[in-house]
Amino acid sequence: MSNQPSMIRSLIAQDNPFNTTDELLQWIRRRNEEIKVAIEPADLKSMDQWYMDGDGCLRHRSGKFFSIEGVHVETDFGPRQAWDQPLINQAEIGYIGIIAKEMDGVMYFLMQSKVEPGNVNHVQISPTLQATYSNCTRVHNGKQPNYLEYFLNVRPDHIILDQLQSEQGSRFIRKRNRNIIIRVDDDIEVKEDFRWMTLAQLKSLIRHDNLINMDTRTALSGIRYANYMDNNTDWEAFSPLGRDLILSANAPHGLHSLDNLLFLLTRLKVKYTLKITPKPVNKLEEWNIYDDRIARADNQYFQIIGRKVSISNREVLSWYQPLLQPLEKGICAFIIKKIKGIVHFLVQAKVECGNFDTVEFAPTVQCSAENTNDPYRQPLFLDYIENADSKQVIYDTLQSEEGGRFYREQNRNMIVVASDDFETEDIPDNFTWMTLYQINELLRYNNIFNIQARSLLAALPYAEQ
Amino acid sequence: MSNQPSMIRSLIAQDNPFNTTDELLQWIRRRNEEIKVAIEPADLKSMDQWYMDGDGCLRHRSGKFFSIEGVHVETDFGPRQAWDQPLINQAEIGYIGIIAKEMDGVMYFLMQSKVEPGNVNHVQISPTLQATYSNCTRVHNGKQPNYLEYFLNVRPDHIILDQLQSEQGSRFIRKRNRNIIIRVDDDIEVKEDFRWMTLAQLKSLIRHDNLINMDTRTALSGIRYANYMDNNTDWEAFSPLGRDLILSANAPHGLHSLDNLLFLLTRLKVKYTLKITPKPVNKLEEWNIYDDRIARADNQYFQIIGRKVSISNREVLSWYQPLLQPLEKGICAFIIKKIKGIVHFLVQAKVECGNFDTVEFAPTVQCSAENTNDPYRQPLFLDYIENADSKQVIYDTLQSEEGGRFYREQNRNMIVVASDDFETEDIPDNFTWMTLYQINELLRYNNIFNIQARSLLAALPYAEQ
Repeated sequence: MSNQPSMIRSLIAQDNPFNTTDELLQWIRRRNEEIKVAIEPADLKSMDQWYMDGDGCLRHRSGKFFSIEGVHVETDFGPRQAWDQPLINQAEIGYIGIIAKEMDGVMYFLMQSKVEPGNVNHVQISPTLQATYSNCTRVHNGKQPNYLEYFLNVRPDHIILDQLQSEQGSRFIRKRNRNIIIRVDDDIEVKEDFRWMTLAQLKSLIRHDNLINMDTRTALSGIRYANYMDNNTDWEAFSPLGRDLILSANAPHGLHSLDNLLFLLTRLKVKYTLKITPKPVNKLEEWNIYDDRIARADNQYFQIIGRKVSISNREVLSWYQPLLQPLEKGICAFIIKKIKGIVHFLVQAKVECGNFDTVEFAPTVQCSAENTNDPYRQPLFLDYIENADSKQVIYDTLQSEEGGRFYREQNRNMIVVASDDFETEDIPDNFTWMTLYQINELLRYNNIFNIQARSLLAALPYAEQ
Repeated sequence: MSNQPSMIRSLIAQDNPFNTTDELLQWIRRRNEEIKVAIEPADLKSMDQWYMDGDGCLRHRSGKFFSIEGVHVETDFGPRQAWDQPLINQAEIGYIGIIAKEMDGVMYFLMQSKVEPGNVNHVQISPTLQATYSNCTRVHNGKQPNYLEYFLNVRPDHIILDQLQSEQGSRFIRKRNRNIIIRVDDDIEVKEDFRWMTLAQLKSLIRHDNLINMDTRTALSGIRYANYMDNNTDWEAFSPLGRDLILSANAPHGLHSLDNLLFLLTRLKVKYTLKITPKPVNKLEEWNIYDDRIARADNQYFQIIGRKVSISNREVLSWYQPLLQPLEKGICAFIIKKIKGIVHFLVQAKVECGNFDTVEFAPTVQCSAENTNDPYRQPLFLDYIENADSKQVIYDTLQSEEGGRFYREQNRNMIVVASDDFETEDIPDNFTWMTLYQINELLRYNNIFNIQARSLLAALPYAEQ
């Protein structure tokens, strides 16, 4: 096993000379106690540094960070053809950066315990660097983010991945972040809020509710394991399920060719139309501006709220900001199935109003778990997921969305192994089957897999017994 | 040679039992005489079915086809930081479709002789199907385009390629067309304006000025030859240069890895900003609206003109439309060089104002060949191209831009083999070297290579002696 590539060894290495997984759990628990967090309601119109313009949009006085704006949406995807809604407009590209370092033949990742105002449990495990462009250029006069210089000065041959990936298409207008993982060779100081972790530990911790934050999940999902597999790869080190998954990550040829998966995406981008027109927030149909929130009268979907935030260890100790609060419980799930001996994922092509290019690939199920009596909202395969036998469910965890924008949002993330009689051929036009290799290959390119899919993929492959 | 894949045989097959290359040249010459074309100047404000709105925008009364709109551009790419200009806004995705058929072990392509109003020589060799969505849905009440039904009913396993690719980023706002090549197995009627051609014939005809139209070039550029190369591939059938090129098309590993090429693209998309703001045409700085044109006072770049068009064999016999007329001669060139035994292309990452995603890969040189005294317009490597020894120049042809939107635009297309002392390592930050395999791999994805690069790539690889 000594020649095993360090990235693959990291997938297997539950042991870590720096800290055990239990110690990491204790560390997060302790940080939760130590860091003082106060989140108080604030009127939307009286948040320091923010103002509501004549259209009802919420904007930062610097013109930076993000704004809450309104849109009218028209599309022929799905049963609802037109609606109004607010969206978060965040034009600037943020850093989601992780530093990796090979030590004793194992790749370690430098992770941070970080508080975000919307986090359900305050402290979560976050990337080494998680900062908007405004943070990096110190628009808010805070400290320069830790470890930023490593990313600014990285040599091209030390980049493990560097991708622009989308965030929630139903909440952001074309938002993207830079997902970047870099390797350092030199010794590097491990600062107070940071710890080295293996992939095996991260993929174990991700099975705890709301512990690995969204930004970590999206960055981890982009690692292309096929790059690291070779004759030295020790398949026996994986559990039978782990082996099935890592072999899928090494399987370029699946039920469909990569070409045909790309042609499907083209076909659906031509088939579906999506038209977004800016519309003042105070004119959005079904939506109202109240003192403390922007919300629908029927309290469906989500609302925009104001909060005053005080966090003891952040660059800026106290600030005001709007947050998006979901009013429904979400569920995101992949159905997977062994087809011709290789694990395939049932992938949905989905149009969301803020998508960069109309269609992105999404999990098999991505919806609200409520309101299933609404004829407009009866997603395919939800029944199958919810009625699956517990032996079929190989992953079932509550995962938080980004606490810098979303208030206490947690979605149920599931991976369900389909039974043998699950239909393989006769699936809807906008669904297809892919191997994990094919998914990883498409993930090299921007805006092909959405954040909900990437959040699930971050848990894979895993080698636990 | 009998087991040679049909696509590779097509690259070699100068012989064609249906028509020799000379017969194809005569056919185009004859069609040029037979088809009656009249193009007459028209005042912009008195074109039937078109109107100029209060902002000076030109729009079709149906709301379809395209419009001429104004934008203000801000970018930190290049020396000019801000300017105004008109752009063509064509939201709908058009078909660029070619039917292919394998006959006697050779792949043939069904090409059309087609007139476009702006064509410098009227008739050019065009795809089987070249139609806007409005054409296909008969917004202008013409006939349904020939062979459309084959594309509407194609089986997924008969698709050779299906991509959304960009058009000129300096003239269109985020315009894309669907480049699709399909295979048919059944007999198919060859209609009056159509002929079967091999790839070898197309790549011979493309060496004639203004003969293979832009849409054909972009569709052909997407064929991924590595898909068709195997143990049966007869490299000896290629000329030494042709062999170097086809081997480059089979070389996944070049000076840089594909990962590093993608990371470069991410880095440059983050580095450069591009902001486009709509602005009324009648308020564009430096631009004026005259009766017969929208143009700059200094007559630089291009102008928008009106034309009345009468063509005897088109679905609609006569119509009015605006056209974009260039006022300078353009030049697009790749510098190629054998590095470690494999032909590499010197590729430029370029920001153009109408780009779908800020940066696309472009030829080494893409510029106007004039105004080189203007300090803002002194492109790198132009000197090298213009002073290259004739033995270094392996391709030098005038190629037309799309005659449905551009008036008599022809750009010089060149491929130049760099001398051994041409610098390989120390090149500007937004340039890189790629093999033809890597280019073809990136071309599978939307909006990575621009139309000028694809136009040049269409001529390759070629097997002529």
